[in-house]
Amino acid sequence: MSRWRIGTPKVELDTPALCLDIAVVERNVRRMAAHLAQTGVRLRPHSKTHKSPALAHLQMAAGAIGIACAKLGEAEVMAAAGLKDLLIANQIVGADKIARLVNLAAYTEVMVAVDNPDNAAELARAALSKGVRLRVLIEVDTGMGRCGVLPGAEALDLARCIVDRPGLRFEGLMGYEGHAVMLKDPDRRRQVTEDSLCQLVETAELLRNKGIPVPILSSGGTGTYFITGAYPGITEIQAGSYITMDGQYRQEVGIDFEYGLTLLATVISTRGADQAVIDAGQKAVTRDFGLPLLLEPPGWEIAGLSEEHGKLRRVDGPPLRVGDRVEIVPNHGCTTINLHDEYAVVRAGVLEAVWPVAARGKVY
Amino acid sequence: MSRWRIGTPKVELDTPALCLDIAVVERNVRRMAAHLAQTGVRLRPHSKTHKSPALAHLQMAAGAIGIACAKLGEAEVMAAAGLKDLLIANQIVGADKIARLVNLAAYTEVMVAVDNPDNAAELARAALSKGVRLRVLIEVDTGMGRCGVLPGAEALDLARCIVDRPGLRFEGLMGYEGHAVMLKDPDRRRQVTEDSLCQLVETAELLRNKGIPVPILSSGGTGTYFITGAYPGITEIQAGSYITMDGQYRQEVGIDFEYGLTLLATVISTRGADQAVIDAGQKAVTRDFGLPLLLEPPGWEIAGLSEEHGKLRRVDGPPLRVGDRVEIVPNHGCTTINLHDEYAVVRAGVLEAVWPVAARGKVY
Repeated sequence: MSRWRIGTPKVELDTPALCLDIAVVERNVRRMAAHLAQTGVRLRPHSKTHKSPALAHLQMAAGAIGIACAKLGEAEVMAAAGLKDLLIANQIVGADKIARLVNLAAYTEVMVAVDNPDNAAELARAALSKGVRLRVLIEVDTGMGRCGVLPGAEALDLARCIVDRPGLRFEGLMGYEGHAVMLKDPDRRRQVTEDSLCQLVETAELLRNKGIPVPILSSGGTGTYFITGAYPGITEIQAGSYITMDGQYRQEVGIDFEYGLTLLATVISTRGADQAVIDAGQKAVTRDFGLPLLLEPPGWEIAGLSEEHGKLRRVDGPPLRVGDRVEIVPNHGCTTINLHDEYAVVRAGVLEAVWPVAARGKVY
Repeated sequence: MSRWRIGTPKVELDTPALCLDIAVVERNVRRMAAHLAQTGVRLRPHSKTHKSPALAHLQMAAGAIGIACAKLGEAEVMAAAGLKDLLIANQIVGADKIARLVNLAAYTEVMVAVDNPDNAAELARAALSKGVRLRVLIEVDTGMGRCGVLPGAEALDLARCIVDRPGLRFEGLMGYEGHAVMLKDPDRRRQVTEDSLCQLVETAELLRNKGIPVPILSSGGTGTYFITGAYPGITEIQAGSYITMDGQYRQEVGIDFEYGLTLLATVISTRGADQAVIDAGQKAVTRDFGLPLLLEPPGWEIAGLSEEHGKLRRVDGPPLRVGDRVEIVPNHGCTTINLHDEYAVVRAGVLEAVWPVAARGKVY
């Protein structure tokens, strides 16, 4: 049972409360779907942001091709809630996890990223022994310098390990221009993104020239959705944050989806007219991209976040009193959502539903 | 059911795994108890660090006077697990929360921090209507500049609001030298701490001179335990992190309890001999005090943490391979523990128990 009762006005919800403005979320979902409908690139929204099957189903209903998951545990939660065509956009390593993966593949459509021939061989053995055929994308490092094989020959070598191997089905290539998504200068972001995508598309061409079909080219995030989502050859993008948005993407990167996620908090202490302390600190809203934004009340700003408290500083607003409510926009939605067990789903200022952050903590 | 099976060797646990070396934890608990036994100051360990009734019971068995909690929800979890004499070291604001608080006070010993006369009046009304007497500490701001009344006259005024009010029982004063606990220079840390404690003790003297008994003076954290825990007049300290320790307190502040908390992770990708990527990022170990420390293997270091990945850089160790295990010391235990659902409790290299992080996420 939730601590919130359906029908409660938003301004009376017990705090800290992770609040979804569901009308805004629906608009963000429709807007991304409408944008991509013009380019023909499909959307595979990333569930690492919202961790919520309810929101994933909303995205599927708007035309998403499937769901991207960061971790196997996240994919298990999505599958158990009826989501299909799940891409685990990560390497799955180790006997226990690979056994879980092929078990999952036995009852829903799963793809997994691969960047290592030994890992591919291990996946194939497990899939064969389970009697499934595991769909795989080769992860290509297109400049971020994290996971993935190098574009070109290294990708081709790995593809040759996979294409004819019983137990596996080669589905294509995955990149991620993670080194571009947060670039503030739009021209530079476009340039770095296109450089990255060019390597992915050229690698696909190399494979095709060697007779290997490459049906899927998956890449992109919220910071590059309008670039990657229009780039010739890319078949799908993996944007996540657009659904709820956050301060970093909107204020720093200039992506203009609406804020659908806020944190409601309460003033628990004041000092004179110029300082107030709220009941939300770093365990309720992260500061990995800097301090969050204070949406309400105007005339105040967030001065600091400690572990359990937030400190507000008056700019020019009227003084706050103990018990007053404030509303905060997280600077990083993904890591903030991952701190909470439930969303307070609000429409027109009233609590309409409580949705579990069902895949919260599923880092394994 | 946990994903880990009792009896599994630590090196085979599914990762990321939040791992307690329980023999180390027991030594840390005994050591703090032994230290304070010499000074006569009591220990009220803070459960905001470990979020675990099992660990709180371990501390009580070693002589702790009760448990400090950051939030009401945390105290509810501790009470439900049989912990007694709980201090909610924070202001409890709003009708819903105050109702929960007096309900809790009806079946276990609870104290709460107060720094506002209207809040005190509201607490008193609720306590009276529930038929309980709520124990309160006045929080005094001794230099941190967050919550609390000012030392001296402001504290006296609030004490006078509380002492004879039906429904409340005035128990004493609470400070927190949070502006001192992380100071790296030991002399400066001692100076700032003693300045802070002096204000607390002088305020207690002022109240006593006015005929108000002040049985409890509570302050202190892991960074100042040996100062606050020996300061004349202080009756109890609220250290939390000492039980598991973390990189920040040990490496930066020089507190020498042993590391009892680590994160086990697995290499999922490599690039040549000099880079490896692990399956643990910011959702598994926080970086609010900087990057965590790599304990194993030697000859490697943590180069970066993104949301779902950690990047390791070779210094002079042998190359890592996909599937290799690494062990990390969190730089901030409190916020890292709060990301996980379970502890893998290991003794002599074997999984002995799985304990829930039962108060994880209880920010309300």
